[in-house]
Amino acid sequence: MKKLLVGSLGVLCAGMGLAQSSVTLFGIADVTARRVSNSGATSVTQLASGGLNTSRFGLRGTEDLGGGYSAGFWLEGALLIDSGTGGGSNTNNQASGATPAGGLTFGRRSSVSLYAPWGELRIGRDLVPQILTTTYYDPFFNVGVGASQTFNSLITGPTGVRASNSISLLTRPGPGFIGHLMYYMGENASGSANSKDGTGVGIRLGYAFDTLEVTASTSDTKYVGANTRQTTVGAIWNFGAGKLTGVVNDDRSGALKARGFNVGVIVPLRQHEFKAAYSQYKIDNNLLSPMAKKISLGYAYNLSKRTALYTAVGYVKNSNGATATAAPGAPAARANGNSTGLDLGVRHMF
Amino acid sequence: MKKLLVGSLGVLCAGMGLAQSSVTLFGIADVTARRVSNSGATSVTQLASGGLNTSRFGLRGTEDLGGGYSAGFWLEGALLIDSGTGGGSNTNNQASGATPAGGLTFGRRSSVSLYAPWGELRIGRDLVPQILTTTYYDPFFNVGVGASQTFNSLITGPTGVRASNSISLLTRPGPGFIGHLMYYMGENASGSANSKDGTGVGIRLGYAFDTLEVTASTSDTKYVGANTRQTTVGAIWNFGAGKLTGVVNDDRSGALKARGFNVGVIVPLRQHEFKAAYSQYKIDNNLLSPMAKKISLGYAYNLSKRTALYTAVGYVKNSNGATATAAPGAPAARANGNSTGLDLGVRHMF
Amino acid sequence: MKKLLVGSLGVLCAGMGLAQSSVTLFGIADVTARRVSNSGATSVTQLASGGLNTSRFGLRGTEDLGGGYSAGFWLEGALLIDSGTGGGSNTNNQASGATPAGGLTFGRRSSVSLYAPWGELRIGRDLVPQILTTTYYDPFFNVGVGASQTFNSLITGPTGVRASNSISLLTRPGPGFIGHLMYYMGENASGSANSKDGTGVGIRLGYAFDTLEVTASTSDTKYVGANTRQTTVGAIWNFGAGKLTGVVNDDRSGALKARGFNVGVIVPLRQHEFKAAYSQYKIDNNLLSPMAKKISLGYAYNLSKRTALYTAVGYVKNSNGATATAAPGAPAARANGNSTGLDLGVRHMF
Repeated sequence: MKKLLVGSLGVLCAGMGLAQSSVTLFGIADVTARRVSNSGATSVTQLASGGLNTSRFGLRGTEDLGGGYSAGFWLEGALLIDSGTGGGSNTNNQASGATPAGGLTFGRRSSVSLYAPWGELRIGRDLVPQILTTTYYDPFFNVGVGASQTFNSLITGPTGVRASNSISLLTRPGPGFIGHLMYYMGENASGSANSKDGTGVGIRLGYAFDTLEVTASTSDTKYVGANTRQTTVGAIWNFGAGKLTGVVNDDRSGALKARGFNVGVIVPLRQHEFKAAYSQYKIDNNLLSPMAKKISLGYAYNLSKRTALYTAVGYVKNSNGATATAAPGAPAARANGNSTGLDLGVRHMF
Repeated sequence: MKKLLVGSLGVLCAGMGLAQSSVTLFGIADVTARRVSNSGATSVTQLASGGLNTSRFGLRGTEDLGGGYSAGFWLEGALLIDSGTGGGSNTNNQASGATPAGGLTFGRRSSVSLYAPWGELRIGRDLVPQILTTTYYDPFFNVGVGASQTFNSLITGPTGVRASNSISLLTRPGPGFIGHLMYYMGENASGSANSKDGTGVGIRLGYAFDTLEVTASTSDTKYVGANTRQTTVGAIWNFGAGKLTGVVNDDRSGALKARGFNVGVIVPLRQHEFKAAYSQYKIDNNLLSPMAKKISLGYAYNLSKRTALYTAVGYVKNSNGATATAAPGAPAARANGNSTGLDLGVRHMF
Repeated sequence: MKKLLVGSLGVLCAGMGLAQSSVTLFGIADVTARRVSNSGATSVTQLASGGLNTSRFGLRGTEDLGGGYSAGFWLEGALLIDSGTGGGSNTNNQASGATPAGGLTFGRRSSVSLYAPWGELRIGRDLVPQILTTTYYDPFFNVGVGASQTFNSLITGPTGVRASNSISLLTRPGPGFIGHLMYYMGENASGSANSKDGTGVGIRLGYAFDTLEVTASTSDTKYVGANTRQTTVGAIWNFGAGKLTGVVNDDRSGALKARGFNVGVIVPLRQHEFKAAYSQYKIDNNLLSPMAKKISLGYAYNLSKRTALYTAVGYVKNSNGATATAAPGAPAARANGNSTGLDLGVRHMF
């Protein structure tokens, strides 16, 4: 992450005629050698993008409007650094609006913001509030072979992680009340059965105490097939030597429902960081109720604030017919089989 | 818009060994809540990209070659900020060369320039001269629900707005003679009937007086199906308290022809800007002659030079079977139906 | 190429709180008017991207880790400046992984690096070692109508120029031992016949003397259809007034093999640069053995270090049924026909 002619530079070089604004080019280049072994099924060895943090690139900036008000923009896209390709997006929060991966997009976030002393109005494409609780309280940030099992995109649908065509109100980051309300639109024309598809609302509320943060979030997205709903409650406690995390999920898609939880710990020690988590996720589909349990261990060695070497191990145990694999994109496990994933990578922020 | 290590910085920090050149990262993030209501037909509520100015991102730079000469480049792509996706391009000025929207491209402009004291040689992809008269003399800049009706891409074809594979000569911006000549190529192989498809020439000539600017432009693009031609005459008059604009269009595609005009007014008042326009466009197709008439009103409140809140209303009245809608991309109106569009948005330049 | 807040700036403005790191935005905008005439077959006149150097855009940066160690990233994509579109990539080093051209990608290079005093560990997508000898010892850098004939992508396959999912060890640039070892993976799941497809290794070894550099490279990529192998030996000699180059290629794809060579000379003279080369390439396919011979002449006038005007001529003589054309992407020549290409362009680096 690099500020280009930042405001502070303008201040320090007063009289140079520089504007009090900034454009920041930023990103993360994270690449990992990965092995996913599925007992009794196909395995894979690969170079993968994003074992510690998702690889990305972007530009963002803010403009001071005076009186505590400012305006800004944020453009950020996913980067598959092992091939130089980009992540896709979705233009209408429905399957029909999927923009395929391959070409670069700003599909992770593309927004304009107006900031006031009390908070922020953010408009465009962004993470939905309902995924933030899940992600923030996973020591592995839902990335790599250690990622929590408490998420299934088949249930959460196109708006499970991000939504386009959204308008959000957010409190400013920091201690105290946490509020985040988002409304997003599918933008279908009126007069048909699916007019409201992809339209929904998400909300996240919480409080950040001195050493404890607690939040809850829920959402409802309309689809003529089956509405989806994600409900999550989580907490993080800083106990001095490290942090304890916990989160409980309840995801619904019509009659289909799934429940899971994740508990974890993060212990930094000088340049070292140790992480561990246990998560499980069970889908109730009235027939089998596939269940996946996962143990995750991680270690990172920070060469600097921006660059780290890391390793992680994830072990998934499937039952009731589940086929969960230890890393996203890896071949599915055999039904009721185990899956073991190993990451060994480097993460560089810019 | 942000200059990265601009020339002035190099001068002020003399001895730092910085080159006298610059790369500028720039763009516009413009997002609007939009409602388009079509009488007796489907309507839509959406978040749209670009209600006041088209959203975009890009990088550009120049290099001083001495003696009044310089070289430069300009890369600019369309940005759909409501979803983080990009606009497409067209590689051969023909339907077969369309690059779909989705991934980011530099499809708005991608060019190398050589600047001399007398003008500029520009090579690559760029706006065609024939659209500039139409756009510059529309108070709404052909964007949003207030955009002029005087344009129909079915008639103007793939080179109606931009052309790839082009070589242009332009006079420098400023008072006095305005000249802009572009030659563009379809690049088909020789020896077939459509060898010249997508090849054409556009020219724009005018004069900028003290308070009055008048220009005329015309073009001719070859297609074995039907050549296209756009002819436009326009003027803008600064009457002190504001500006009056007027433009007349004549578009042809083989036997098909269309005519239209647009008259408008822009009145800035401190941070406020008021705009109004009337436009109409009639297609002569020997059967019906569909006619669309539009009244547009706009207002912007400039929070700063870069950030504005705005609203606009466009009302389209169709007759003779026309189905024009108040905003590009919205559902078509019912034949002879009315269409009303409303924008409420924020525009942030960087 | 422009450094954004470079390290030296941080040093000179000590106390400003700037990090000792940098992000560099860089690229090349090279566009050429091109005519390719094929005797007795179709010809084409076009505006092409990259006659002197391939057009590109990218961002890169490094971070000093102390003790002679550093970390960095490099993201670079191909740019078709005549249309503003991007080059594609390939996610798995196989035909099935091709990412089409159109949207922008970082398909030229996308990598994370760790630098030590002895060399570099580079991970991601990059040029393969086996193409470097071919390219570095072609006075035309394998670009434009003067590009060497000693390459055929039908034989070298998806990893003939670049590979994704790669891990490389490289010596630092400079005089002395040259070493470059790359391992790349196709990442197919285990247990099928094509599990190893797209997986391979390339190596390049050499020595840079005072005025002479000699290198050899070879590679082996697995495909269940037919493994591919590229072997190349080359040298460049600085004789004072200019440089002499020579390279010999041997490419194999199963039973199919091809051999070629290229000899050339580069003579700079103040702002002028003169280039000439002769190359030939013969494919042994047990039936005909198509042979293409090429003479290339080039001239560049450097307006500055970054901007040059240039021209080049390439004349290809085909025999034994060969249909090689003078420029990539131009229509194929008639069997045994001649092809003549002419470039007249401008190259601007940033």
